[in-house]
Amino acid sequence: MSLKKDFLINKRLESDTFFIEDLPLCKFLLMNDSNYPWFLLVPRINGIKELYELEAKDRAQLDFEIVEVSKFISSTFKPKKINIASLGNIVSQFHMHIIGRFVEDPSWPGPVWGAVDFNKYKSDEVDIIINLSRNFSKTLRA
Amino acid sequence: MSLKKDFLINKRLESDTFFIEDLPLCKFLLMNDSNYPWFLLVPRINGIKELYELEAKDRAQLDFEIVEVSKFISSTFKPKKINIASLGNIVSQFHMHIIGRFVEDPSWPGPVWGAVDFNKYKSDEVDIIINLSRNFSKTLRA
Repeated sequence: MSLKKDFLINKRLESDTFFIEDLPLCKFLLMNDSNYPWFLLVPRINGIKELYELEAKDRAQLDFEIVEVSKFISSTFKPKKINIASLGNIVSQFHMHIIGRFVEDPSWPGPVWGAVDFNKYKSDEVDIIINLSRNFSKTLRA
Repeated sequence: MSLKKDFLINKRLESDTFFIEDLPLCKFLLMNDSNYPWFLLVPRINGIKELYELEAKDRAQLDFEIVEVSKFISSTFKPKKINIASLGNIVSQFHMHIIGRFVEDPSWPGPVWGAVDFNKYKSDEVDIIINLSRNFSKTLRA
């Protein structure tokens, strides 16, 4: 792993999210959109845009973190489906979306990106989710 | 790996795509939409809906096939960005999208799913892409 202590997160990713925890490889973030349980994993390595630019051992760790976050979303929020995606057409810094989807959510069955306006969290709502997520992430923490 | 000889692909995935090759883990398919170089990888294991349902060794192989297909798309089509996603809100059989995206494509910078109608290939166009993809996939073939 080649984690940089001087890792710089993209400003838009930072402003759209709440910080949960630094996992062994990734920053674990909650998107500020209460329409879905929508999390991001951002490997703390500067200059990565595409999955194939990560070293194999970092991809293995990313896979592990994606799977654990997916299981956390499934067991906590009981979604119909998990959506996992790396797009990066707007913010090119590599980041992975992991989203719980529900038949009742405002974009179902379409994708979430650009579908409806963000529904920002109220502070008490977001505190509950961040606490749950932080408790989960302690088991994976670097 | 637990490949089933009786693997059954979802009918909609089958009808929307051209078969390229069986890679060691996945069916390698081309989406019948000439708007983008849009490929699918479908692990040949029945009953999988979520990434976390795959065994770790199969996820490692999936990661390898995703990376190799991504590099193939990059070197062949020279896109601005690669989009990688497992959604499955409509077709729940686990499948991974790997798509080359261009600033000039009809959905940029939004996601491709549901954005514009499929622009089906003409037979001479698709023959060229399938041949290129099959030549590439020989290096990975089971």
